[in-house]
Amino acid sequence: MLHAVIMAGGSGTRFWPASRKDRPKQFLQLAADRPLLRLTYERLAPMVPPERIWVVTASSTVELTREILPELPSGNVLGEPVGRDTAACVGFAAEVLRAYDPGAVCLVLAADHIIGDEDQFRQAMIAGARQVQENGGLLTFGLRPTGPETGFGYLQVGDVCRTIDGYQVHTLSRFVEKPDVVTAQGYLDQGNFLWNSGMFAWKAEDLLSEIERQLPLLAEGLHRIGVAQGTGNEAAVLAEVYPNLPRISVDFGIMENAAVRWTVPVSFPWSDVGSWPALREVLTPDDAGNVSRGRAVVLDSGRNVIVSEGPVVSLIGVEDLVVVATPDAVLVVPADQAQKVKAVVEELESRGWDDVL
Amino acid sequence: MLHAVIMAGGSGTRFWPASRKDRPKQFLQLAADRPLLRLTYERLAPMVPPERIWVVTASSTVELTREILPELPSGNVLGEPVGRDTAACVGFAAEVLRAYDPGAVCLVLAADHIIGDEDQFRQAMIAGARQVQENGGLLTFGLRPTGPETGFGYLQVGDVCRTIDGYQVHTLSRFVEKPDVVTAQGYLDQGNFLWNSGMFAWKAEDLLSEIERQLPLLAEGLHRIGVAQGTGNEAAVLAEVYPNLPRISVDFGIMENAAVRWTVPVSFPWSDVGSWPALREVLTPDDAGNVSRGRAVVLDSGRNVIVSEGPVVSLIGVEDLVVVATPDAVLVVPADQAQKVKAVVEELESRGWDDVL
Repeated sequence: MLHAVIMAGGSGTRFWPASRKDRPKQFLQLAADRPLLRLTYERLAPMVPPERIWVVTASSTVELTREILPELPSGNVLGEPVGRDTAACVGFAAEVLRAYDPGAVCLVLAADHIIGDEDQFRQAMIAGARQVQENGGLLTFGLRPTGPETGFGYLQVGDVCRTIDGYQVHTLSRFVEKPDVVTAQGYLDQGNFLWNSGMFAWKAEDLLSEIERQLPLLAEGLHRIGVAQGTGNEAAVLAEVYPNLPRISVDFGIMENAAVRWTVPVSFPWSDVGSWPALREVLTPDDAGNVSRGRAVVLDSGRNVIVSEGPVVSLIGVEDLVVVATPDAVLVVPADQAQKVKAVVEELESRGWDDVL
Repeated sequence: MLHAVIMAGGSGTRFWPASRKDRPKQFLQLAADRPLLRLTYERLAPMVPPERIWVVTASSTVELTREILPELPSGNVLGEPVGRDTAACVGFAAEVLRAYDPGAVCLVLAADHIIGDEDQFRQAMIAGARQVQENGGLLTFGLRPTGPETGFGYLQVGDVCRTIDGYQVHTLSRFVEKPDVVTAQGYLDQGNFLWNSGMFAWKAEDLLSEIERQLPLLAEGLHRIGVAQGTGNEAAVLAEVYPNLPRISVDFGIMENAAVRWTVPVSFPWSDVGSWPALREVLTPDDAGNVSRGRAVVLDSGRNVIVSEGPVVSLIGVEDLVVVATPDAVLVVPADQAQKVKAVVEELESRGWDDVL
């Protein structure tokens, strides 16, 4: 049966002060009045019933996840004792799913992306799921690039093998790391490159076979977790095994050398909302190009990004700033320097101002 | 005996979001970890005992004033049912003082100024008080100008009549309204002009005589308030009379045409802290010229004014901004546009966002 696995383990600092150690990006209401994780769930719910939607998140955010997604059976929220990168994450989910549904087909999705055309999204997901159900192999969804982006990895596609409901299934030639802008433009010009979106489809057993073949240490640990399912001893095994799993990404640890791999190009509006200025892509600007969430008064100001989690934010006579306010912390930074927020978080850590971390 | 009257009736909007309707500027911790009103009291306390320090404030802030100044007898905090400008304010205080101390000599001071050399301040005050005690008349303290300021009224001084403890007592020739910069430079060049500081000395009975002569309607209302003192009926009389008192300033309603008037030039460091950027004059800057109050993290930023009433404020890569944060409101504005904060307050009023007004 078709399952959806939401990877909600991120813990970045790029959205400070809205994001905190115990409330990372996927729990923030960045694009709407619900958290990104909730939007991800709602995007899947018309396609997969709640009993077959799973979330993998940090142990510390399991309770918060259950509050945000009360429709899910509580056992569908899987807590990682520590983060061990995405290969461990998807393998963990696959072991648990297979224990309950040996023929499980999984869609694997990030918790913190914004997607504009949800019908198109679901049609593409179903096409990809059908491909792996019928043919096996590991499948990644690739976004048709709209510009020479240097912030994403790229996928080089091979031949078209099949078309399902209008979606082409290609073989996947190779993964390439984040390129410089000249290389990225070359990829665009060649036309056979896609953005690596981090959305996948596979049968649980096929993923686990690939892990066993390529990452035997990971497979061994995951197997112990799998056999503990239903024994009442799950938590203890997890706490013992998980911290020692090898740390590697699904792209480079599994996909890159998988025996059978596919990619389905998709072109729905998509953003990984990588930093505060990315909200310009997902919120509707006012006449002066300002985007805002929460209560704001903006006078004689243009092209600002304003996010409030409570306070009224007032801007007068400023341009191209990111201003983020919570009841206990405020950030003011030019949009083109927004990546420097990490330096603020480091400074807060060095000062021991843990109350706002 | 010598009394001090602190005028604490201001209700400006220039310090939003720190100042609110029920917490105007004089109650804010702008320059230190105590409110401006408390600093004013502490400046007077070595010279005048608490029983003879009086505060006139809005009825709505009487309780707050008593909390900030627990040393004062509660009857020394006089509440104005409505603001009726400074002539009514000083007359009200004079009537109450005279009822308890017919020979009262009053120093009258603003609650919201910052003064740098408090010993010098007190010596000047005592010299002024001695002048009016011995010679009668109304006396105003004038600051020796340090630049062609256009934000203050000026005093033109006449001849020196006397020197008390090194302080010259001049006759006062005339009041002049806020000048343009060319006129202000002319005043500096002439050398016989002072900034009008809003600090006064007089005997209560002399002030009331002048009010009687120049503003008989005001005198009549104040007289009714005066005779009610000690009857137990003070509050009812005040509520009835005060709203109908004529609205005029002490400078133009009383001082400008007073029969006998003096001025004592003073030169202690002084600021009326007229707007957020004025904090540059009273706070110590960091190496990059930023001044701040409250917790702040400032990276790659210069010459900013940062005030926090709680939240951690983080600035990256910005210059010459005023950033003010409270738990429920944030202001970001270039320092040279800080006066526009009034427009924000008007906008908040028009939107009905009363919770932050």
